[in-house]
Amino acid sequence: MTSPTATLLISCPDQQGLVAKFANFIYANGGNIIHADQHTDFAAGLFLTRLEWQLTGFNLPQEFIAPAFNAIAQPLNAKWELHFSDTVPRIAIWVSKQDHCLFDLIWRHRAKEFTAEIPLMISNHLQLQEVAEQFGIDYHHVPVNKDNKLEQEAKQLELLQQYKINLVVLAKYMQILSADFIAKFPQVINIHHSFLPAFVGANPYHKAFERGVKIIGATAHYVTSDLDAGPIIEQDVVRVSHRDEVEDLIRKGKDLERVVLARAVRSHLQNRVLVYGNRTVVFE
Amino acid sequence: MTSPTATLLISCPDQQGLVAKFANFIYANGGNIIHADQHTDFAAGLFLTRLEWQLTGFNLPQEFIAPAFNAIAQPLNAKWELHFSDTVPRIAIWVSKQDHCLFDLIWRHRAKEFTAEIPLMISNHLQLQEVAEQFGIDYHHVPVNKDNKLEQEAKQLELLQQYKINLVVLAKYMQILSADFIAKFPQVINIHHSFLPAFVGANPYHKAFERGVKIIGATAHYVTSDLDAGPIIEQDVVRVSHRDEVEDLIRKGKDLERVVLARAVRSHLQNRVLVYGNRTVVFE
Amino acid sequence: MTSPTATLLISCPDQQGLVAKFANFIYANGGNIIHADQHTDFAAGLFLTRLEWQLTGFNLPQEFIAPAFNAIAQPLNAKWELHFSDTVPRIAIWVSKQDHCLFDLIWRHRAKEFTAEIPLMISNHLQLQEVAEQFGIDYHHVPVNKDNKLEQEAKQLELLQQYKINLVVLAKYMQILSADFIAKFPQVINIHHSFLPAFVGANPYHKAFERGVKIIGATAHYVTSDLDAGPIIEQDVVRVSHRDEVEDLIRKGKDLERVVLARAVRSHLQNRVLVYGNRTVVFE
Amino acid sequence: MTSPTATLLISCPDQQGLVAKFANFIYANGGNIIHADQHTDFAAGLFLTRLEWQLTGFNLPQEFIAPAFNAIAQPLNAKWELHFSDTVPRIAIWVSKQDHCLFDLIWRHRAKEFTAEIPLMISNHLQLQEVAEQFGIDYHHVPVNKDNKLEQEAKQLELLQQYKINLVVLAKYMQILSADFIAKFPQVINIHHSFLPAFVGANPYHKAFERGVKIIGATAHYVTSDLDAGPIIEQDVVRVSHRDEVEDLIRKGKDLERVVLARAVRSHLQNRVLVYGNRTVVFE
Repeated sequence: MTSPTATLLISCPDQQGLVAKFANFIYANGGNIIHADQHTDFAAGLFLTRLEWQLTGFNLPQEFIAPAFNAIAQPLNAKWELHFSDTVPRIAIWVSKQDHCLFDLIWRHRAKEFTAEIPLMISNHLQLQEVAEQFGIDYHHVPVNKDNKLEQEAKQLELLQQYKINLVVLAKYMQILSADFIAKFPQVINIHHSFLPAFVGANPYHKAFERGVKIIGATAHYVTSDLDAGPIIEQDVVRVSHRDEVEDLIRKGKDLERVVLARAVRSHLQNRVLVYGNRTVVFE
Repeated sequence: MTSPTATLLISCPDQQGLVAKFANFIYANGGNIIHADQHTDFAAGLFLTRLEWQLTGFNLPQEFIAPAFNAIAQPLNAKWELHFSDTVPRIAIWVSKQDHCLFDLIWRHRAKEFTAEIPLMISNHLQLQEVAEQFGIDYHHVPVNKDNKLEQEAKQLELLQQYKINLVVLAKYMQILSADFIAKFPQVINIHHSFLPAFVGANPYHKAFERGVKIIGATAHYVTSDLDAGPIIEQDVVRVSHRDEVEDLIRKGKDLERVVLARAVRSHLQNRVLVYGNRTVVFE
Repeated sequence: MTSPTATLLISCPDQQGLVAKFANFIYANGGNIIHADQHTDFAAGLFLTRLEWQLTGFNLPQEFIAPAFNAIAQPLNAKWELHFSDTVPRIAIWVSKQDHCLFDLIWRHRAKEFTAEIPLMISNHLQLQEVAEQFGIDYHHVPVNKDNKLEQEAKQLELLQQYKINLVVLAKYMQILSADFIAKFPQVINIHHSFLPAFVGANPYHKAFERGVKIIGATAHYVTSDLDAGPIIEQDVVRVSHRDEVEDLIRKGKDLERVVLARAVRSHLQNRVLVYGNRTVVFE
Repeated sequence: MTSPTATLLISCPDQQGLVAKFANFIYANGGNIIHADQHTDFAAGLFLTRLEWQLTGFNLPQEFIAPAFNAIAQPLNAKWELHFSDTVPRIAIWVSKQDHCLFDLIWRHRAKEFTAEIPLMISNHLQLQEVAEQFGIDYHHVPVNKDNKLEQEAKQLELLQQYKINLVVLAKYMQILSADFIAKFPQVINIHHSFLPAFVGANPYHKAFERGVKIIGATAHYVTSDLDAGPIIEQDVVRVSHRDEVEDLIRKGKDLERVVLARAVRSHLQNRVLVYGNRTVVFE
């Protein structure tokens, strides 16, 4: 599986023959499909598909694939993305003071659980600068408060551009990004420490304890201008009991947060996540 | 384990020596403790315990246990309940049109998963009358609407009294009980078809689908005057994906609902649930 | 989704163009694919796919689909099955004395969770005859022992033929079928009360208790001549603790057994299970 | 909860009055019980309990608690352990080449999820020496093969003595310890990468793949002379599908291994694990 691959993520109004048309495009050009999955949302009348094929032996040069596919996609009113596995995406990890998601992402990166470069960390605090240095990641301290948010977001956007970042991972960043920021840089994954939509907003573990729930969760989602309401990529839960104090919920929750965030980042980087409306299809 | 047992559920302000005092009461009277569990809520300053002992060989006659224990409990400001395993509780199952929780409870009752009598069913519909007859349970049709709610609740309370009911199980009853009803008959367990507090109110599966969650749940709780906000006894969840339509959520949810409700009813009937504030301790 | 559908389950040596070829066959004949999923087992060099399309508007009459597809499949050395959703499969449920899986299957059948007819029950005991009668299912008592196994299996096979049975579900039948029986009637799903391959053979709950495991499971699998070693369709687990005696494991296990068996039967009946070697692909 | 505590783990033949006797011992000496839990194994006729109380205000000096309790325990034929929370246990982590459990334990140690010192790492390889240095842990390379096992184990035992180690954690050590070693140093926790007793021995993920299971697991257990058969402390599982290759099982399994091992180590360090026969009670 070491041959580079191309991946198409397509959504278009449902109609007959879509599987055949898309598969033919790849087959006619000598491509070998190694993953094909599709889903029809009958209520929305939408056909959604992911096609991945090997580039070795594919007759179209990489730069011609997009225009060639566009000729097929346009008459179908299809929205689509094309990704190449040999283009390594670049991630910025944003943190605050907690290190569990950060350490976990760095460990998985070292273990090659996902392919990416992590050249940049941004934080409103200084606590994790040492970790960044330990692993050779540039660390930019951009403290944010009510008054300087606008200019600091400008600085953050500049950094993302300078480092050619494709994806921002909020690994317990604990700050709200403005709608304007999201409009300019929409590829942001956040980990929320509750089983959304339960306990939106701050202090979900305290709220969960107050409510006396028997299960807690964590949610990874794309960030939108609507707080904690973006498309959900992944969730998981763990059982708790009356014996668990708030600090136990926090401890157990950390294990959830890091694994849920990691799965979401990995699915995203493998181009397995297709967003439509406020929902995701995560192709497995 | 066939010897009848007594069970004390106690909550009182925390202080030294409580375990010793309560255990001594049983030991001094010749009782053999077969289950003892306790929990301290340090934030609330409360000590909560469950003690179960065999009545065979216990020197106090059953009718003297309560007054004797009261002499110990009062100086400690303890709230307590005393239950005897040879007093079989009587359940009324309230249903609407759906039969999955009903069938499940009846099957578990036949399989002796819990000890109780089920002499009464109440419903606002006629669909499940046949099932009641099939299993020899009296079925009372008490149709409720906005206008007749008050008088129908009076009729329901009368039935509960007439049948000497100890516990009402809302097995998908789909109607809201008035605060007044709950004040008069507080022992009511409901199954809510969501992972509370997510998706309170009606149509939780539709809301869950809309929100695009990756996990759905069900919650069994005591009913209070505050809708869907009573003390939670048990919850469980199941993973869903983009492939699941609303009807799949409903189907998967049914499996959750019946098992979550059954576990809650069983814990309650075994006197393992201690409510304090809006929380429960479920002793295992 | 009420239009009848056709479903192809195909496995064949992997090569380029398979998705396109199969999709074209359906598209060229005017079919609308509503579900397409595929999997490549790279180690085995096998391509495995499931295609389901609506028959309304499909230009080939039902009886010509198989020969037409065969013309495509043969040069590819493909093995395939063709199913029509308007052909309702017929199930025989085999039981011994325990009723939990039986009741569950009957309830799901009533709730239309799967489409099938259940005209026949076979048992080596008499205990569940009453349940069969209650739900209008023919009950045949075929007691089996070491000495009469051969002739009784002949009788069982005769019954399966007489009732035109497509699938045997061993809902806690607790008897071993001979290799000869399986050769003659291979479509048999069994529920094993352990997380296979742990605790093969008899009394798995006792063995699990002895071993002191913290989780127990159940496994639904196709029956082969190799005891408890057939292709696994579905498994699930539940957490246990030192507080659970053997009878608690049995009680908790029942909840697993019925849901695991039900999922396996449903997947099979929806033609979502493709067996190859000793493995299954369960298309979702 | 910052006051130091004492913890008793007791197992003794079941008889009347044990809860009272043990609680009285603590109460009579002015102790405040903050955790008390017990379990009766009726089949074995054994009473098992864990009692934790605050030392502040306790009238017996620490060094007199053991002899004083012994006077109570001996007539009851009780086996017991006494632990003090202000005695910090010392751990040696043994590794081979894989770093996921190691990193996880180190991160949890830093995050104060458990209280211990980690002064020593032992490995038969050199790969993780750098990690040890990074976190200031002494690293001893003790390469083991068939011929030198005996003398190398002597060296390992010497190191354990020299570093005053209380607990050895085999964090993917991948070597079998001799019965002789275990006899001399019995406090060893291992993480096995399967849902024991399924897939004992080497290469469990390959075996799980071959068998086509739908769920994989990990098991933390005390090491005994009987390979992979020691008392189980904790297990957990994760769902897999036909899409998961062996390397996916390994990747998913790593997440299990680290969390299962961490939970077991934490329970052990909090003196919550009581071993009897080949079983554990894990008091929560």
